[in-house]
Amino acid sequence: MNALQKLLDRTNNNKFVCVGLDADIKKIPQLLLKYKDPVFEFNKIIIDNTIEHAAAYKINFAFYESLGAEGFSVLKKTVDYIGGNVLIIGDAKRGDIGNTAQMYAEAVFNHLNFDSITVNPYMGSDSVQPFLKFKEKLNFILALTSNKGAMDFEKLKLENGAYLYQQVIKQVNEWNADKNCGLVFGATQLEELKQNIKSFNNMPVLLPGVGAQGGSFEDVCKAFKSIDSNSFIINISRGLIYRSSEENFGEAAKEEILKFNKLSEEIFS
Amino acid sequence: MNALQKLLDRTNNNKFVCVGLDADIKKIPQLLLKYKDPVFEFNKIIIDNTIEHAAAYKINFAFYESLGAEGFSVLKKTVDYIGGNVLIIGDAKRGDIGNTAQMYAEAVFNHLNFDSITVNPYMGSDSVQPFLKFKEKLNFILALTSNKGAMDFEKLKLENGAYLYQQVIKQVNEWNADKNCGLVFGATQLEELKQNIKSFNNMPVLLPGVGAQGGSFEDVCKAFKSIDSNSFIINISRGLIYRSSEENFGEAAKEEILKFNKLSEEIFS
Repeated sequence: MNALQKLLDRTNNNKFVCVGLDADIKKIPQLLLKYKDPVFEFNKIIIDNTIEHAAAYKINFAFYESLGAEGFSVLKKTVDYIGGNVLIIGDAKRGDIGNTAQMYAEAVFNHLNFDSITVNPYMGSDSVQPFLKFKEKLNFILALTSNKGAMDFEKLKLENGAYLYQQVIKQVNEWNADKNCGLVFGATQLEELKQNIKSFNNMPVLLPGVGAQGGSFEDVCKAFKSIDSNSFIINISRGLIYRSSEENFGEAAKEEILKFNKLSEEIFS
Repeated sequence: MNALQKLLDRTNNNKFVCVGLDADIKKIPQLLLKYKDPVFEFNKIIIDNTIEHAAAYKINFAFYESLGAEGFSVLKKTVDYIGGNVLIIGDAKRGDIGNTAQMYAEAVFNHLNFDSITVNPYMGSDSVQPFLKFKEKLNFILALTSNKGAMDFEKLKLENGAYLYQQVIKQVNEWNADKNCGLVFGATQLEELKQNIKSFNNMPVLLPGVGAQGGSFEDVCKAFKSIDSNSFIINISRGLIYRSSEENFGEAAKEEILKFNKLSEEIFS
């Protein structure tokens, strides 16, 4: 299965939760600190409890880079542990000139074996092309992000009347000749989501911002249901992996993801 | 010395070359492959030969991440080897939501001990703030980059008549309350540099794009000289570190940086 197929394999079964493995050594249950590699131990238990129910996993590089060289090993071990049947997104928000972007693409896709990456569009086409060359992978380009700062540039109005993020969506549609592009669109931006959802042309959408940031899982599902699309995944990190700080944190995560799946099942069936 | 002082300490002496340590295992002299850690060996010899003459060092993370966990160790060893007397920039082009940006900032500034980082502004203020909290460091924000793709978004015209990159420059001026911001501006964008140079308000500027990308060291120096500013550094990577593929590659790099320093000396004295 290529990356897009992995995603659709899950969303066709009304599973839309992308599990954000933002494992922070300061926030994981303290009982794990007795292990040699507490973060990996944490990830394993979360994965064991969610792998049948998740639409995808998203691993934000920041949480691993902050651990130094060891963090990089944990990242790699975590990808290997998840295995090949579910989409794994490297949330790296990369963007650099061509020869450098090429190095990043090789690191994330070949060395670390991710199915997918998040890419920052600011530097334009040649910074994105090296990722697009990997035709079996999936490149989620930042369009409108979930944070407050989205106001500062993404929502600036251009001379032609469109907002910058809308111009990005238009451009990503052009980059998508090999069907290996997707969009990042904040779940907190519900009005904008409804207004722009048709312009996505069924490209897969990764929506962060549910939970700690205030976006609604239900509202996002309904927005996609209204255009008969199930080409989206909703990322939940803190609201899922830190449900409990006790030994039962894995079961607590499982319970939570099952609630979300029940909700989307109801909306889409 | 804080980061800005380190930079000015060199540029006040007419040294403007930022040495880009983009060490690619496939491009370094093959005679180094006999060492246990060829990339670090390469970096050491380049550093030994340039440290008195460089304005700064810039280390692009892509080249190290592509080596996996080992690459991270080489990165750290290289920063330690350069030591504390010259500005070291982590060229990571980071940008993410607040809590994640905080992790990146800690990784780059605390764990890896860089003086400075490059930051992508697309996601706006709250993605940049965690870096700005490090008041003694220097945060180079991407304004107008050196690559062709700069056309796609950075040079889009806004409703108010300004280009997106000009809006970024304006915003960075506001972020600069603690004098810990700088700008990335492509040396290939000479006309735009001349038109916008006063709007930098003497913030330090990192200019990539000389050499392989076609920018001119001399033209950039003259542009800053015309406004009596020496608050800039010009990055040279491939055009400096790969001057020779033989044993003398260190001396070859030294010879090249001395040529640039002679040129800037002539322009500024």
